[in-house]
Amino acid sequence: MSPTPFSPSPGEPVLVLLEAGADGARLPRVADPAVPHLRVSDQGVTRGDGLFETALAVADEAGVLRMRKLGAHLGRLASSAAALQLPAPSAAAWEAAVERGLQAFTAANDVAAGDRLSVRLTVTRGPEAAPGALPQPSAWALLSPAPAVEDEERRTGLRVLLLDRGLDSRAPERSPWLLTGAKTLSYAVNMAALRYARAHGADDVVFTSADGYLLEGPTSTVLIVRTGVDGTRRLLTPLRQKGILAGTSQAVIFAAAGAAGWELGYGPLVPADLEGADGVWLVSSVRGVLPVRAVDGVEIPVDHALTLELQAHLDADGDPGAHVAGDPAPTAG
Amino acid sequence: MSPTPFSPSPGEPVLVLLEAGADGARLPRVADPAVPHLRVSDQGVTRGDGLFETALAVADEAGVLRMRKLGAHLGRLASSAAALQLPAPSAAAWEAAVERGLQAFTAANDVAAGDRLSVRLTVTRGPEAAPGALPQPSAWALLSPAPAVEDEERRTGLRVLLLDRGLDSRAPERSPWLLTGAKTLSYAVNMAALRYARAHGADDVVFTSADGYLLEGPTSTVLIVRTGVDGTRRLLTPLRQKGILAGTSQAVIFAAAGAAGWELGYGPLVPADLEGADGVWLVSSVRGVLPVRAVDGVEIPVDHALTLELQAHLDADGDPGAHVAGDPAPTAG
Repeated sequence: MSPTPFSPSPGEPVLVLLEAGADGARLPRVADPAVPHLRVSDQGVTRGDGLFETALAVADEAGVLRMRKLGAHLGRLASSAAALQLPAPSAAAWEAAVERGLQAFTAANDVAAGDRLSVRLTVTRGPEAAPGALPQPSAWALLSPAPAVEDEERRTGLRVLLLDRGLDSRAPERSPWLLTGAKTLSYAVNMAALRYARAHGADDVVFTSADGYLLEGPTSTVLIVRTGVDGTRRLLTPLRQKGILAGTSQAVIFAAAGAAGWELGYGPLVPADLEGADGVWLVSSVRGVLPVRAVDGVEIPVDHALTLELQAHLDADGDPGAHVAGDPAPTAG
Repeated sequence: MSPTPFSPSPGEPVLVLLEAGADGARLPRVADPAVPHLRVSDQGVTRGDGLFETALAVADEAGVLRMRKLGAHLGRLASSAAALQLPAPSAAAWEAAVERGLQAFTAANDVAAGDRLSVRLTVTRGPEAAPGALPQPSAWALLSPAPAVEDEERRTGLRVLLLDRGLDSRAPERSPWLLTGAKTLSYAVNMAALRYARAHGADDVVFTSADGYLLEGPTSTVLIVRTGVDGTRRLLTPLRQKGILAGTSQAVIFAAAGAAGWELGYGPLVPADLEGADGVWLVSSVRGVLPVRAVDGVEIPVDHALTLELQAHLDADGDPGAHVAGDPAPTAG
């Protein structure tokens, strides 16, 4: 029995399920996101056992939607899957799901240049299987209209709290079961940290390690710019080895900044590094580059020209190459 | 439109959804667990944002099923909900769901004395709501036949690995956003630790804090028995303040052991405390009391008589009162 074909409504999210075909291949099918598709025994919900990626698709001048940083997101998804020992769909299957979703959204909407979609790819360990049965992961792409970030928000900046994530900076290498390098569905602590910040007069969070290093935001990567006495710009981000998720936006910005002659550095960084900087930013795929204007209630400089420059690096969406935090830094040129 | 009434099949799990009624009350409805009931945007799956309890129901001599430790489970559920700032259903709504589920299971099965069901209560933050809209948590009870634990398993015991959970023992009091006292759905690390143990020749895990204290298993509480030189039995469990989930089984066993004249102690405990003990156990609601027979590959004593005695304390299912780890220990009598 083939399910009834579903056509998304204008302005609504588009869901593409990656269903297992007869030969084990994963086939995309557009489905209604407003109805249930997951069993209550899905280990994505019973154990937060699965992984995700959140990416951005933007329409070009011709109104054609394209997902940004496709290779970087699918690469990180594969590495999260390896850490979780989860048999995730192949990159080709994800590409087919995204393509199908962008087509379905385009068919239902008048897409204009600059229109944006958040593209969330999720795979869970699937419903709990009988002993001996093969697990059957649940996998889908959800594409949702994403409002443009207001110029005001990009200009004003975020008040952040530094919150201890409780792990020391060497825990990740000692203890692979802590999954610090994987983008898992177990985000309850990240969400609790954001609620804590909002209840205490802040907008966002930068996690620190138990031994005092800067890490990352609950849903973002930290960037710092410092200008040397000779006028050289230096772009910094915390070391991935400290237990930080490899930032796909950070990698793209580093690649572009490096090509533009900036020096690049991968820390380690401590809270004092936030104070004397030209500026501090949180970057993520959908919100892009947002300046930090206060840390633990203390104002820090906000440089709007630098924000726009970093955002332009991100929008250029070049090949991130080896510019992932923690990989060897290229010699500054 | 009222959904079609669903009748569970013999031997199959029974699902009871707690649906929001017109006045906000939560009403139980028996539904088919083999079909989807959750949207892909449910924050239980997108963020592991929710909580759960796993309890045991056992049939008495007359074949009447009753959930054990009802008050303790519902109390812990309420305290997890407070930590997550999640508007969970009331205790009365959960009781109605469990009652409805036990009735439905009994109607579909010939229940015999001693038959067992695991009863899993789950509540998530629900589908992501539009800005300004009230969140609508998803809540359900899933009752699944639970095979009896084989005498052999109770006799042989578990090989455990001590794995660092990465947090130091004072992180929980400093950092409430770490949610260490809440039973959240974000269990990816717990599951990864169990996979790590199984890949390294062990059956289960005891987590330790970064500063070297014994904590708990990924799905169990640790108990230790020591006999003093005067023959007094002393029952020990790690301190809840160190970031341990309050064990409902531990509390019941402590209450019964205290009443039987054992001394009770709440640690703190370190790995060396496992070595000189009469025995070490992992306890949880469904599996009950299981002895540990090896720690990091080193055999430790297994005392089957003590296992049976502790299991009998648990089966007695008395009022746990204040015997939760971390609460003031009563004077040994």
